[in-house]
Order: sequence, then C-alpha cells, then structure tokens
Amino acid sequence: MSIRSQKKFNPEDDLGFGSQPVIKSQPLIKQDGSINVKRRGLSFFHTEDNYHTLITMSWTKFWLLVLTCYAILNIVFAFIYMTIGVNHLNGSEGTTPYQQFWDAFFFSAQTISTVGYGHISPSGMATNSVAALESLMGLLAFALATGLLYGRFSKPSAKIVYSKNLLIAPYLETCQGLMFRLANMRRNILIDLEIEIIFSYNEDVNGKPVRRFFQLEVERRKVSILTLNWTVVHPLDENSPLKDMTPDDLKNTQATFAILLRAFDDTFAQTVHSRTSYQFENMVWGAKFKPAFDRDDDGRIVLDLSRISEFTNVELPSPKPPLNLPQ
Amino acid sequence: MSIRSQKKFNPEDDLGFGSQPVIKSQPLIKQDGSINVKRRGLSFFHTEDNYHTLITMSWTKFWLLVLTCYAILNIVFAFIYMTIGVNHLNGSEGTTPYQQFWDAFFFSAQTISTVGYGHISPSGMATNSVAALESLMGLLAFALATGLLYGRFSKPSAKIVYSKNLLIAPYLETCQGLMFRLANMRRNILIDLEIEIIFSYNEDVNGKPVRRFFQLEVERRKVSILTLNWTVVHPLDENSPLKDMTPDDLKNTQATFAILLRAFDDTFAQTVHSRTSYQFENMVWGAKFKPAFDRDDDGRIVLDLSRISEFTNVELPSPKPPLNLPQ
Amino acid sequence: MSIRSQKKFNPEDDLGFGSQPVIKSQPLIKQDGSINVKRRGLSFFHTEDNYHTLITMSWTKFWLLVLTCYAILNIVFAFIYMTIGVNHLNGSEGTTPYQQFWDAFFFSAQTISTVGYGHISPSGMATNSVAALESLMGLLAFALATGLLYGRFSKPSAKIVYSKNLLIAPYLETCQGLMFRLANMRRNILIDLEIEIIFSYNEDVNGKPVRRFFQLEVERRKVSILTLNWTVVHPLDENSPLKDMTPDDLKNTQATFAILLRAFDDTFAQTVHSRTSYQFENMVWGAKFKPAFDRDDDGRIVLDLSRISEFTNVELPSPKPPLNLPQ
Amino acid sequence: MSIRSQKKFNPEDDLGFGSQPVIKSQPLIKQDGSINVKRRGLSFFHTEDNYHTLITMSWTKFWLLVLTCYAILNIVFAFIYMTIGVNHLNGSEGTTPYQQFWDAFFFSAQTISTVGYGHISPSGMATNSVAALESLMGLLAFALATGLLYGRFSKPSAKIVYSKNLLIAPYLETCQGLMFRLANMRRNILIDLEIEIIFSYNEDVNGKPVRRFFQLEVERRKVSILTLNWTVVHPLDENSPLKDMTPDDLKNTQATFAILLRAFDDTFAQTVHSRTSYQFENMVWGAKFKPAFDRDDDGRIVLDLSRISEFTNVELPSPKPPLNLPQ
Repeated sequence: MSIRSQKKFNPEDDLGFGSQPVIKSQPLIKQDGSINVKRRGLSFFHTEDNYHTLITMSWTKFWLLVLTCYAILNIVFAFIYMTIGVNHLNGSEGTTPYQQFWDAFFFSAQTISTVGYGHISPSGMATNSVAALESLMGLLAFALATGLLYGRFSKPSAKIVYSKNLLIAPYLETCQGLMFRLANMRRNILIDLEIEIIFSYNEDVNGKPVRRFFQLEVERRKVSILTLNWTVVHPLDENSPLKDMTPDDLKNTQATFAILLRAFDDTFAQTVHSRTSYQFENMVWGAKFKPAFDRDDDGRIVLDLSRISEFTNVELPSPKPPLNLPQ
Repeated sequence: MSIRSQKKFNPEDDLGFGSQPVIKSQPLIKQDGSINVKRRGLSFFHTEDNYHTLITMSWTKFWLLVLTCYAILNIVFAFIYMTIGVNHLNGSEGTTPYQQFWDAFFFSAQTISTVGYGHISPSGMATNSVAALESLMGLLAFALATGLLYGRFSKPSAKIVYSKNLLIAPYLETCQGLMFRLANMRRNILIDLEIEIIFSYNEDVNGKPVRRFFQLEVERRKVSILTLNWTVVHPLDENSPLKDMTPDDLKNTQATFAILLRAFDDTFAQTVHSRTSYQFENMVWGAKFKPAFDRDDDGRIVLDLSRISEFTNVELPSPKPPLNLPQ
Repeated sequence: MSIRSQKKFNPEDDLGFGSQPVIKSQPLIKQDGSINVKRRGLSFFHTEDNYHTLITMSWTKFWLLVLTCYAILNIVFAFIYMTIGVNHLNGSEGTTPYQQFWDAFFFSAQTISTVGYGHISPSGMATNSVAALESLMGLLAFALATGLLYGRFSKPSAKIVYSKNLLIAPYLETCQGLMFRLANMRRNILIDLEIEIIFSYNEDVNGKPVRRFFQLEVERRKVSILTLNWTVVHPLDENSPLKDMTPDDLKNTQATFAILLRAFDDTFAQTVHSRTSYQFENMVWGAKFKPAFDRDDDGRIVLDLSRISEFTNVELPSPKPPLNLPQ
Repeated sequence: MSIRSQKKFNPEDDLGFGSQPVIKSQPLIKQDGSINVKRRGLSFFHTEDNYHTLITMSWTKFWLLVLTCYAILNIVFAFIYMTIGVNHLNGSEGTTPYQQFWDAFFFSAQTISTVGYGHISPSGMATNSVAALESLMGLLAFALATGLLYGRFSKPSAKIVYSKNLLIAPYLETCQGLMFRLANMRRNILIDLEIEIIFSYNEDVNGKPVRRFFQLEVERRKVSILTLNWTVVHPLDENSPLKDMTPDDLKNTQATFAILLRAFDDTFAQTVHSRTSYQFENMVWGAKFKPAFDRDDDGRIVLDLSRISEFTNVELPSPKPPLNLPQ
C-alpha cells in the first residue's frame, strides 16, 4: 500500500481523533452519529451532566421518572405527617394506620400540587410548617419540570437521512467520484449546510498499526438551502488520498468515512449537527443514485424520502478498476 | 439563447436545489419565502416535528387546540370519576347521571387547574389516586403550555418588506443594474445583513430541459446595520450570466430570482432569515426607485414603509435594449 | 474641502445608512446607541412587536401593566358572575350590589390565581363553566408571564462605558491617532470583541448636500478578551479619509462618528452589541488618556470605571495643525 | 534578554490586556479561568447583573435565598394581615397574638403558594385585596423562579480538564514544541474547537517594566470534534517569540501562558468557552505525554481522564539547552 505524504497528513491528534488503530467493529463514530469512546474518571455527580441526562433521555423514561419522584415525595411527606400526628390533619377520618397513611399521602399530593381542596387541612405549628415547605417544594419542582420540558422540546436537533451506501460513481466526463446522498427528515428548513468527510485507516508504521486521518475534499462544501436532497461528491482525482488505494486496501486497513454535517435550523435559529459513518461494506463500485423526486399533477416537486438510498448499477468510465491495484 | 459556461455553473444540486426544470406556476421558493416542495416518507409521529407544528401554527389554531384539549381531558376524567362512583365525590349533589356528569366534569376542571375550591372533594383510594394523578397531569400540561408560549413568542422572525418589482435601472454612468429594495417591518434592529440572489432558469440540454442555478454578484453583499431601506444591486456587466439574455429568454426559460437574506436581530441575539422570489412578470425595464423617506419638522428622518415599492420610469443609459437580442 | 475618492466610497445606501444629509441635532445613531429614524406604515398589531415591546419596556411599566391586566380581568369576570347571578356563588353573603360585586371580584381573583380557598364556590352550569374557563385563562396568563419574565432577564445586553471624548492623540513616534476608550460596566466577561467606526459627513454635490459614509480603519479591529479597558485607535495616516480635513471642515459638514461594537457574552453564550456616536463637539485635539487602573496592596489590578474618560493635554508630535488646512 | 521585534508585537492594549507589568502571584487570568481584575465604579443595582448573580451563584446559596425570601415574604404579609385584623381571617382560632401571628403566617403561605386549603379564608375588602395581591405576587415569584431555574440549568458551560504541566517535548524529528493536553470532562460532545495561547512577560523599557503580549502560533488551531484528548503544540521554531529565551528569562519576566478555548456544544447548540493559564513553575523541560487511553476487551477505546497529566521524561533532540542562553 502506498500513500503519498501530503500536507493534510497530521501525525497525531488530527481532527480530534487519536492515532490509535481501529478494530473493524469499533469505529470512533458510529453509524447513528454517536461517539464510540468510553470515558473513565468522570465525576459521578455533576449538575450540568444531570441536566444533560434529563434533557436527552427518552420520553418514556422521563415520564416514568417524573411519576416515580411524585410518588416517592408523597410517601416521604406522608410519613412525616404521620410522625407529627394525623390528628393535626383536620378532616382526616382514617382510624387504622393504613387509612391514616393514605389520608396523609393524599393530603401531601394535594399540597405538593397546590390543589388544596381543603377537606383535609393542616393544624398546629409542625404540620403547618411542613405543609408550607411542601407547597414551596412543589412549586419549585414544577418550575423545574417546566424548564426541563422546554429544554427537551427546544433542544436543537437535526434528523438527516443518509443514503445507506457510499457509491463510486461516474463523475464529469472522465472521472469517478465517491458519492453519498442526504435529505432532511423533518419539517424545519435547513440553511447554510456545510459538510466534512474524514477518511481514516490504519497505516503500518514499523510493524505497528497507526491510525491516519484525512479530510477529503468535496466538490461543494456548502449549500445555501436544502430544499430537495443533496448529493455530496468527493472527486477521485490526483489530489485524493484514495487515488492509489484498492478495494482490498480499504478493507484491510479498516477504512472508515466519518461524515460531519453542520446546518442552521431556520425555525429555531440554532446551529444543528448531524454525524454518520460509512465502512468498507457500505461501499458500492459502479453505481449512481436514482432521482428521489417526482412531480405531482400540479407540476409540484414531491421528494420521496424512502427512495434516498436507491441506485442503479452503471459502468465506470475508466477501463481500469475503480481504484488501482497495488503496483 | 447563449449562456457562457463559467465556474459558478454547477451541473447538479447546486445551492441545494435540484436540476429538475421548473414549471411557471411552481417555483421552488414562493414569494412568501416558503419552499414549494412536498415530501413523502416523513414519519407520522415525530416529537420535534410536533413541537415545530405547535410553535409555528397560527394563534387562533393554537388557542382552539388548548381549549379542545382542556375540554377533552375533563370529559375523560369525568367519565373515570363516574365509573369509580360519584358517591366518592363528597359535596356532589347531582342525582341524575346528567347532573353527576357535570359535577364530575367541574371537579375535574378544578383539579386539573389546581384551583381546588374543595366544595367537592375526593374520598376513597381510587378517586383520590385519580385526582392526585390528574393534578400532576395538569401541572405538567401547563408546564408544557408555558414552554410552548415562550417558544412561540421568542422564536426568531424577521419581517422584511421587499419591493414588489425587480427593476432594470441605470447604474453608475454607463451601466445598468438589476435592483430591488427592502426594509425592516418590525421594531427590532437588524445588524450584519447579508444578501444572496440565486438566478435560475431552464436550459435545453439535448432537447430535455434542465434547471440551472447561478448566484448573482451584488454590488454590496453585506451591510452593518439597517437603519433605512437597502437597495440591492446586481450590476448587469460582462460578468453577469444575464448579460446576453433577452426579456423573451427570461420569460421562456421560466427565470426565477430567489432572494435569501440573513441578518442578526439585536434585541434577541438571534440570526434571522427571510426569503422571497421574483418571477419574470415582476420585472420592470427602465425604472428607478423613488426615495421612501422624508424629514419631519425637526429634521428627523421618517421612513414610509408603504412607499418601498414606488418607482418612476427612466430611460436606460444604453441605446440597445436592456438585454441583448440573441445574435 | 477635498476628499479623495477611494474604493470604500459607496455612492448610496452604504452601510445601511441612506445618503440624506444630516442636520446637526439629528445624527442617525444617537449617543445612547438608539437609531434616530421614525417609521411610518408599521402595522398597528403585530405579535412579535408586542412581544418586543413587553420585553424591552421598563420594569415599572411592566409591573403596572401586569397589575392593571389582573384588575381589569377580575372586574370583567366579576360582572360576568353578577350577570349569571351571585346566588350561584355559594358562600357569598353580599346583599347589596356593591357587596355582591366585591364577592364576585374576589372569587374571580381566587379562581384566576388558582388559589381557590373554597369559602366561595361556584354552583350551576353557567358559573361553573365560567370558573373553569377563568382558571384555564389564569394558568395560561401566568404561563405567559413566566415566559416574559424569563425573556426580560435573559435578553442579551451589553453595558459598555465609552469615554466622553474622542481624542486626537500622539500615536507611535511621528503620527497622530483618533482615539476613544471603552470598558465593560457589567460583571459578565466579554470575548471576541470587534469594533467598527463609521465616519459620515455632508458633501456638497452640485450645491446639494449628500451624506457620505466611510468605514475608518482601526489599528486593532478585534481583541480576544476584554479584561481591562480598550483604547480604539484610528491612525490619521495617508489612508485616512480624515487626513485632509480641518476642524472647521468637521464642524461644517456635520461630521459624525458612529461606533458599532460586537462581542460575545461568555456567561450567556450570546452575541451582544453596543453602539454610540461622537459629534464634532466631543472631539479634543492634543490629549491622551490617563490610565484608568491602579494596583491594590496585593498587586492586583483595580480598574476604576469612573476614570474611563480622564485625559491629559499633550502636544501633538507634528508642527502642523492636527488636520491640514484646505489647500 | 533579547526579543526581536515582530509584527505581532503590539505596544498597548494588545488582546484586551493592558501593558501593566504583572507581579508573580497576580496573573491576569487565573488557573481556574477567572479574570484577576477588580473593578470599581460598578453601579450597585443593575438588573442584568442581579440576574447574572442569581444564575451563577452556587446551588446551596440559591436554595437558601429562595427559602429566606419565602420566609420573609410570609412574615411581612402575616404582619399586614394582623394589622388589618385577624378577625378577618375566617377559621383562624388563635387567641394570643403569638397564635394569631402563626395563623396569619400560614394563611399567607397557603395564599402565596396558591394552595388555598380554605380552612382559613379572607373576609372583608382589605384582607381580600391583600390576599388577591399576594397570590398574584406568588405566581409571579414562581414565574421568576421557573425562569431562574431554567437559566441556571441551560447556561452554557464547558468543563475542560487541562494537563497540570506545560511540557517542552520533542517535536517532529529535530525540533521542540511547547505542549499541553486537554480533554472534555462532561458528557456533551464538543465540536469545532479553537485554541489560542497568549504568552506574556515583563519587558524592561528604559528601566520601567512593561507587559508584552504575543499570540503563539499553534501547529493546529482548530479541530472538528473532540473525541479523545487534544495535545496542543506550539513549535519552538524560528518564528516563536520564545526562541531565544532561557528558563531564567521566563522566570524573571513573570512569563504567563493564557489559554483560551472556544468550542461548540452539540447538545445545547451553544458556543462555550474555557480558559486557563500556566506559569513558569508549571513548565517541564524534556518530557512527553503518555497516552491517556486504553482498549477494553471489545477493542473499544477507554479514555481515562485522571491520566491526562501523565508524562514521561525524555531527552530533547538538540544538544543545546531547550532555550538558548543569552548571547
């Protein structure tokens, strides 16, 4: 395998990735865009990270957590009211401890939610004080819930669909290009999109594999607005670090293509990011994408997101194999 | 029709638009700035898109939706309370099912809104539990409403008024320019404005129409602050792709001018965008804009937004027609 | 007066300002940074502008508005309850219309604030329905208030103190510079500051005054972080449009220096802006700023914001007057 | 000591720092990133600064403040209700002033939190009016609390761990580099990182020390994404202002290296900043960092944040001391 040294070649820590070789099943960026690195030494309790967790957890987990906290808080306060004495809850008619617990429990629920029907009401300093604190706590807890719900909804997110395959397709008259396609899955409008392709592979340095990273040049790095789909093209010309690599090279060196997309969400005035990665087995030699849109009866364009990955096989322009065999 | 090839000419997917030809009545960007593309294959349920819908729907629809949800929730809970037994609602005096339904309905309303007058109050495990859950639900629902209301108000928006016409006006001494004018309709201050004009038309490639896109150069791409109005000028010089086009060319090729404006809203520290488009029929040959501002008695400038489109006809400097006839 | 034409000279709409001449007392940007332009033709009712008004109005006005709305809403609902019949308000003991009004008024207040003591409670379909709607309205109104309060507090703002005067000071060995000084009045940290000076004056074009605008070059356009004060310098060298202007020229042509500052607020991750302007009478020839900071006993720097405008008179390096007389 | 003059050398106010010499124990930026400057002349009461304080204070202080305000408000309102007359609080059974105070106090708590059990209820114009205002106040106060809690949680923050030492390490084949290392301590993903190193020292100008600032060039100023750690390198080549400095020079001139990091937080779509500084005693000559990550059994990379500062001593490539002795 021969890769020419070039100025984009950085020996270490290029693009924030390390130089550790990558085992096939463990690329640094996974196909869903998440980062495949474990970290040790994170402090267990960290406010911002808790917020981060609460904002990014699934809705099911979030609602279960809210319900659980509500139940636990009411149980705790029910025991406090029982400890002080249920006789301080005017209107409570429970006689057994079991009944008294539920009276205290529901009084607590009515207090923490500030409903306060009043058929059970506190009397005495202690019970009144606890009830006053509980209602304050309830208000603050729901202030928190308001913030969390808003944070969950308004957090920036892009939902981009990428073609399943990375094609080696004919490009211009005599050239080939590495191509993939993407479209916006959501109703918001994306503006000022910017793409980055980072190609990485293991290189043999004195018998020890070292991970190398290249930023591939793309035909068009930015688009102003994404109305339909966007086909990103890396021309396989003489400047490409892929120029002299064979399919086998790509396979043996655990080649990975990390895709980083940045865009501006017009509805929420936020910069959003999306990431994905392609492995060797996602590549198809000699294929081009089929158009993913039609016209309806009014002549209006209809983009079909389910056809974003569709391609047809084509013959590549050059007589030689898509990538040279090693000389 | 002859258009010289130039480096701004991208064969495919330029600027995020496709290369599909455009039928007259269906430009990709409509005059109100919305994108004229239908999409198929969007998943029906998507949290972020629901939020997007709730944030961008009209106020009338929004309030109707809130009212409807409130009514439905209370009806559902009323039936739950009736199923458990209205006798568990202390203070309810309804004797017919109709009366009992309304007692349960209003008890539900008092619970979900956390008013909790208490003249009707829950008794028994089941009713108490439902009431406790309902008040929790009420609080979370209004937490949601708080977030939505804030999101609706604080969502970035620019309200730009564009002149109705695109003028071919005299420019400098001997030249002509394509001009339109814009001003801010709102009280916020816009800073760091940036404009883009994307000219597109159908080109005949082997008898098949293909859509072409050009980014037109403008005399001044950025302004620091928009205090009055801004006249955007594309000089029709030898670098312009419009140089050799006749009015008939523009008409026959479904020429469209998409305008993309980016600005920074000083009040809310948000980047805002505005879009519009001009068709052939919005163009006026040989005209220039009239000033849209006066001075009041104190010498202070008064900008009249209703006069932003006003122009007077002028003779164009060159003896030849504004755009050359094909040679 | 002779000003050489140069490429920064734009005949029209430069920097978003118009070419209308400026009368002395009416610069386009006032010293407090607000824009001195009235606008006509703004639509009376515009949601975003109402939000804008509610966010930017003074705190006193805001609280008065909240109180007034609360009072008016309660009065309106009190009349509705009286129209339906006060006998439907259980617990109301008022016998005169006056007493009944206040019973209805306070019941309304208890409903809209969701306190709901319950000593007065609704009965009957009509009263119950109105109360249910009123509590919904109350919750939404306070949802709105929450959003507004958050919006008011979190809106980006920079509080920059500028020196009162624009000095013509010695600069480097043999040169002079136009200088002013600024510092941060608030506790937040400002990063990535960027300054723009726009010099404007009236020029006589065929006997008609036309406003001209120049962006002045500054010695250092950006600083990374503002820890102390920042002295902004425009060197009066051969590239300066001010090079050949005399003090009288500046006075007669209504010269104005508009200052636009952009910075990044590290605490709130927001871009903030500040503006001010200097007139001829703010200029001082032959002066330099005195340091505005000392050291305390620990050697720590203490910046005194009240001394930001302090200067001492100095002799200017060149024998000629600060600005040449017209030749 | 000889430092060549070069164009990065700005005589005054460079990078927002002043030219005041720095005493060893008082660098302008402290190691925790805060700015070591006191300011005088700040206005005592400033809304935005109060918000700033409430957002950035510790959680313990914040909760104590909330509790204290709640208690004080209730005490104030309790006295108001007592002044009007406790007989206007129906249901209050207190007979001594002490008992009456607590009745009024808890009635106030039930009103301000909008619980409103109703076993104590207001009667009479005055008491009713105060209660109506108090519940309004309560709602607004909790609206404020909601905003503050959201503001506290969502405020941008980066938690970066920096290596404890600044190493003079071998770099490329024949060169040396100034190196430090950093990693992300939090679970959020940082994108588009940008680093700045500002080197400052005291220079002797006519016997008076003046502070000089240089922005050091780094091998790689930006990285696209921070997945592992990032080693920042300033090559000690002929362009470095450190080229001719000896360790003693660095020590005697109170040399400081201020580090400014900017990044984009992918989860919250916010630009975040981090700062730190290194002094002479943090420097180690002839050392290089040990890798801070391993592989787990699945081949997945595990970054150990506690090993970010680990280094091993190495011999420097050149025979001469790391920095030349003065000639």
